[in-house]
Amino acid sequence: MLLTFLSDYGYDDEFAGACRAVIARFAPEARVVDLTHGIAPGDVRRGALALEAAVDRSGPAVHLAVVDPGVGTDRRALALAAGQSFLVGPDNGLLTLAAERLGGVAAAWDASDTPLRLEPVAPTFHGRDIFAPVASHLASGRPPDAVGVAIDPESLTRLRLPVPAHDGDVLVAHVLYADRFGNLVLDARPGDMAATGPIAVSVGDRSFAAVRGRSFAEGEEGVVVYDDSSGRVGIAVDLGSAAELLDAGRDDEIRLAARR
Amino acid sequence: MLLTFLSDYGYDDEFAGACRAVIARFAPEARVVDLTHGIAPGDVRRGALALEAAVDRSGPAVHLAVVDPGVGTDRRALALAAGQSFLVGPDNGLLTLAAERLGGVAAAWDASDTPLRLEPVAPTFHGRDIFAPVASHLASGRPPDAVGVAIDPESLTRLRLPVPAHDGDVLVAHVLYADRFGNLVLDARPGDMAATGPIAVSVGDRSFAAVRGRSFAEGEEGVVVYDDSSGRVGIAVDLGSAAELLDAGRDDEIRLAARR
Amino acid sequence: MLLTFLSDYGYDDEFAGACRAVIARFAPEARVVDLTHGIAPGDVRRGALALEAAVDRSGPAVHLAVVDPGVGTDRRALALAAGQSFLVGPDNGLLTLAAERLGGVAAAWDASDTPLRLEPVAPTFHGRDIFAPVASHLASGRPPDAVGVAIDPESLTRLRLPVPAHDGDVLVAHVLYADRFGNLVLDARPGDMAATGPIAVSVGDRSFAAVRGRSFAEGEEGVVVYDDSSGRVGIAVDLGSAAELLDAGRDDEIRLAARR
Repeated sequence: MLLTFLSDYGYDDEFAGACRAVIARFAPEARVVDLTHGIAPGDVRRGALALEAAVDRSGPAVHLAVVDPGVGTDRRALALAAGQSFLVGPDNGLLTLAAERLGGVAAAWDASDTPLRLEPVAPTFHGRDIFAPVASHLASGRPPDAVGVAIDPESLTRLRLPVPAHDGDVLVAHVLYADRFGNLVLDARPGDMAATGPIAVSVGDRSFAAVRGRSFAEGEEGVVVYDDSSGRVGIAVDLGSAAELLDAGRDDEIRLAARR
Repeated sequence: MLLTFLSDYGYDDEFAGACRAVIARFAPEARVVDLTHGIAPGDVRRGALALEAAVDRSGPAVHLAVVDPGVGTDRRALALAAGQSFLVGPDNGLLTLAAERLGGVAAAWDASDTPLRLEPVAPTFHGRDIFAPVASHLASGRPPDAVGVAIDPESLTRLRLPVPAHDGDVLVAHVLYADRFGNLVLDARPGDMAATGPIAVSVGDRSFAAVRGRSFAEGEEGVVVYDDSSGRVGIAVDLGSAAELLDAGRDDEIRLAARR
Repeated sequence: MLLTFLSDYGYDDEFAGACRAVIARFAPEARVVDLTHGIAPGDVRRGALALEAAVDRSGPAVHLAVVDPGVGTDRRALALAAGQSFLVGPDNGLLTLAAERLGGVAAAWDASDTPLRLEPVAPTFHGRDIFAPVASHLASGRPPDAVGVAIDPESLTRLRLPVPAHDGDVLVAHVLYADRFGNLVLDARPGDMAATGPIAVSVGDRSFAAVRGRSFAEGEEGVVVYDDSSGRVGIAVDLGSAAELLDAGRDDEIRLAARR
């Protein structure tokens, strides 16, 4: 079975690699795919959004995700069943957006004291000693009830995301994150955005002429409002950076209105 | 079959990971190897050179490469046959250097409207929705004619690289890029470089004493002119950075002459 | 067999990818896991420590490691047997900490002139042309004697690490490195650290109130001294960076004493 792996372990240390070595040991026949390990340290929200986007066109898989600033506290270790897939990671909101994209949490287990753990468990490295063995177990097709204690899916920690609103004809949205290309991904969904032609994009007291387009190169005015592949509305500058041009970033309010 | 993957998607977002998940879905039996995803955003030339170097000692493979600043425009999506391998990516010059290294383009297909695409195709993420499915199809050993419409290899977009020249006894070369170690890789080929002993390396009005050597540690004078593993002439500083010492980078002119 | 791969090749160039393509060619059935390629250029010590940490909970494997500032000199290319695993890399101290963690070097081979090499060998890229073919050979279960000439394990280059000391009741330790999360990993081992309660951590003439804890969140005083998953003592700041707060880094002396 496919096992995907996302974390904030970065690329300089051996953390992600040590987890991969453990997975190879306990799920030698599983196919392993790294989603990304470049989530900023402790940035649960970015991790949750990256996981949500990546599971969208994946086949059935065990999705292992570790962005875990509460490692070593009493936050729970989770395994979730959703659609034909499983999600494994800490109970801090990292997994639930992806679970909803996969059809919702069908069952949940608390794996904090999983019998599958690698002893002695390093209190600061549950990725290696708890989450990787649990994900390997599931990716090997073994029964989920063996990973821990069944719990009520209603008890899961949920992530709070900003929510777009309408102010008259203006869509008031917020930046969830900027991607590598400087595209700003908003909390708004394509359906929130009625305007189809020229758009004014405002950040604070600055305003930019934009168009509603399908891809980057349609921003003849410099700025294009498009449907991002993650499922949300994005703002881009063709061959440039919207984050730089708009001088906007995480949680900034963006106002979008039709131009006349 | 081996499937290699190169892009400018970087390591912070889930883009490369989302493609890998799609590949795992459509080519579950293929072996997948990342070449690099650290090509600077939109840097088609660096992508083409990295791909050219990496295919050199690879066995037969499908090489998927996505550095695609024109995504969503009418630039074509390509599949190329070269040697015992295939190359998949946008028609912007990214693939042709590698194709030549593999023996030249034997056949080409326009996969822009490939029936293999993942619907709905995200206009800004053809890597996931067009190129990854096409590469997966080929890596599964399925017929290339199914990926799109056969086109004339002569119609492919070619990359323009700087060209070295001779000015009397001086080899006038240009920096293609600096690598992680600060080595400057030039457009000149080892055969362009007749000098075998002490060399003067000039950048603008500055000149550096160098030697022609086989490896970094031979630069007793501080600077060594060597045959880079990519197949071109390089300039290195042992345990240091030639890019820093020479204060040179992309497209800078470098003059190389025998010292007397 | 599992083949792990660690290097200082970074993520921007194709170096690690070119090695992976060679491995796929010569060990098509091996499972390959990247440990990290983000070791700073030429930082043999950090590479050795990362490898030591990562082999700890790996199953039997061939561990390929290339941090090789002496490439092209007469430093030897090595294959080592340790426990049920092999280590492959340059003879500069990179492999020996991991070999000891695996039970010590049982046998050693000089692979500098290995018949397995890819010709022509690039004098600046032994990772691709010497080490990757040797590691692939071993990961395919073929006999180690074929990789080169047996040598005396006593002749191996060993790494010199700082050594902790006691100054009365004070543990005098040194920073080996800071990890991505700003945790300072010291040369001291958990057994070197007798104090169990409040601790004073001193760097130069600055002193910080700390506690001995199991994980990051126990640092009510701001700083926690914990047993790092790498097997050494670490200093952390919960949801912060010990490296920043203490303004300390590699090789800095850290003094640890019980507070009264």
